[in-house]
Amino acid sequence: MTESAARPVRFFLVGVGHVGRRFLDLIVRKEAQLRLLGLQPVLAGVADSRGTASNPAGLDIRRVLALKDAGQSAGAYPEFGHPGQPARALLEGMPADLLVDASPANLTDGQPGLGCIEAALSRGMHVVTANKAPLVLAYPRLQALAEAQGVGLRFDATVTGGLPAINLGRRDLAVAHIGRIEGLLNLTANYILARMAGGHTYEEALADAQEAGHAEADPTLDVDGWDAASKLVILAHSVLHYPATLDDVAVQGIRGVDRDELCQAEEAGGRVKLVATAEWDGEGYCLEVAPRCLPASHPLARLGAKTMGIVYHTDINGTVTASIEEETPEPTAAAVLRDVVDLFGY
Amino acid sequence: MTESAARPVRFFLVGVGHVGRRFLDLIVRKEAQLRLLGLQPVLAGVADSRGTASNPAGLDIRRVLALKDAGQSAGAYPEFGHPGQPARALLEGMPADLLVDASPANLTDGQPGLGCIEAALSRGMHVVTANKAPLVLAYPRLQALAEAQGVGLRFDATVTGGLPAINLGRRDLAVAHIGRIEGLLNLTANYILARMAGGHTYEEALADAQEAGHAEADPTLDVDGWDAASKLVILAHSVLHYPATLDDVAVQGIRGVDRDELCQAEEAGGRVKLVATAEWDGEGYCLEVAPRCLPASHPLARLGAKTMGIVYHTDINGTVTASIEEETPEPTAAAVLRDVVDLFGY
Repeated sequence: MTESAARPVRFFLVGVGHVGRRFLDLIVRKEAQLRLLGLQPVLAGVADSRGTASNPAGLDIRRVLALKDAGQSAGAYPEFGHPGQPARALLEGMPADLLVDASPANLTDGQPGLGCIEAALSRGMHVVTANKAPLVLAYPRLQALAEAQGVGLRFDATVTGGLPAINLGRRDLAVAHIGRIEGLLNLTANYILARMAGGHTYEEALADAQEAGHAEADPTLDVDGWDAASKLVILAHSVLHYPATLDDVAVQGIRGVDRDELCQAEEAGGRVKLVATAEWDGEGYCLEVAPRCLPASHPLARLGAKTMGIVYHTDINGTVTASIEEETPEPTAAAVLRDVVDLFGY
Repeated sequence: MTESAARPVRFFLVGVGHVGRRFLDLIVRKEAQLRLLGLQPVLAGVADSRGTASNPAGLDIRRVLALKDAGQSAGAYPEFGHPGQPARALLEGMPADLLVDASPANLTDGQPGLGCIEAALSRGMHVVTANKAPLVLAYPRLQALAEAQGVGLRFDATVTGGLPAINLGRRDLAVAHIGRIEGLLNLTANYILARMAGGHTYEEALADAQEAGHAEADPTLDVDGWDAASKLVILAHSVLHYPATLDDVAVQGIRGVDRDELCQAEEAGGRVKLVATAEWDGEGYCLEVAPRCLPASHPLARLGAKTMGIVYHTDINGTVTASIEEETPEPTAAAVLRDVVDLFGY
């Protein structure tokens, strides 16, 4: 393998927040390794909520990162910046090989990610997304569009961050029948429950999680179970080949968990977790997100407060458990990069 | 996807023991699912230690299974059987698309698997193997031969049975640097240690494992650590891109584990396991197999007696743990089938 064999991959990045920024950082840090794997990413365009920048010959990634570090928009990029221009404008200019969507999940209408993904696929570009919302709202349509265009639509980063839970399910267990999936898919909820088991009230635990950077200022999606339910919908489509929407998931969050009951359950050896479950009932899958007291012997009971995990109960592959401990969103960005390598590498 | 699009895949199977037999059984049971995935396996030839059978038009898999169930050789197959013929003879007749090697691991000279694999690759056939020995003895040569011929050499079933530990490492963590691998790669040793922790002597625990079908009549390779070391060598080559031989592994088995010390360690909250470790030292990897007392918080400490597992400590993907609970060799056979699907499916 020679360096000259590396293929330039011109990509647009939409969203330069926690994940997008780290993705750019990884592109820079892992340049040599990516060349060995056959690809040479070229940032042809970038968009954040305040503007865009684009250059067919490639933008300087370090310069984009410096702008973001200084609290500025990518639209402030000298010569090639377009302050105020919406992300979709990138998809209306010159073409590229790949769209990377790292924009925030908007479960109401999926925008701006959904529109960008549709535009990219329609133009024959591959798409890698870390954004759950477009998939939750429009998985069948997007998948059909990708197939019709003969391009890839990858989204391993949308579920359990850096852990390849989707790859594991849909690739490694492709021949198996999956009778049940159980997942700890939301870090925030399980961090809070772990703090509550340590004797804190819900309010104290939440404040603690926010201070530690494990919860958003508005934690609604996490603590009410909708983030986990969104991930379960993506798993249902992609791994179980079972079309589902959020309406099909029975969702119960953790606000109603009683601290005393939780502590009693834990003293008796159990562990209370927010568990997402998909269970085969002979005709389809029952989907649920709810706090459950897991016995100590359950593979997910053993996972720490900063760990996400998934269990696949199968007919022919035994019971497979995978988990990831991640301190920052870097593994999620690494999962985006893994999808890019899968699409373009050797 | 229509059924007619399924591609016939003509394969030879060498070895019809625990894994080979279950592989044939899965081919029959999963016929419909395999068609959906785009392939239609055809058993063109089969070999066990007492003979072969072959038919370009395909042997009846149920008939082969019935012969084996009756304690007979595949060589007794009516019309197409060749009693006494060695496995290699299959590779000297008509060609096929794929060799599946499920013959016993022979760490002395790798035969008969090694010769069959070399012959198959040389003829331009793809190879899927569940047999560690040829890889332990000749990984670089076999890999180079496969590359030169433009065919696949897959071996996910050789390490941790049905768990895709190799896929996870070399595919999902391809961009990451792996600073340390820790694995519980041998079921027998860890089953025995778990029984000893329950108060049994080594001898009692071994007898118990043999009775439960978790240990061979001659348990040497398992209890002395060589089976785990072999798997570590395969991980080193395939995931770490670090060429190693068994001589490079510091191997210590479990015969010397003192029951009283073990019980003391466990009472203090630790768990004694036979751990295979590969650790980056800045220039290469230090490889070791030894009994270790893991703290209760270690992800492998939590695994049950019938569970194998692996931890990848990475630079950008966090810490990824995967484990499998398997009661029979069926998941190992399913891993062979997964490799076949990877090579020939959609």
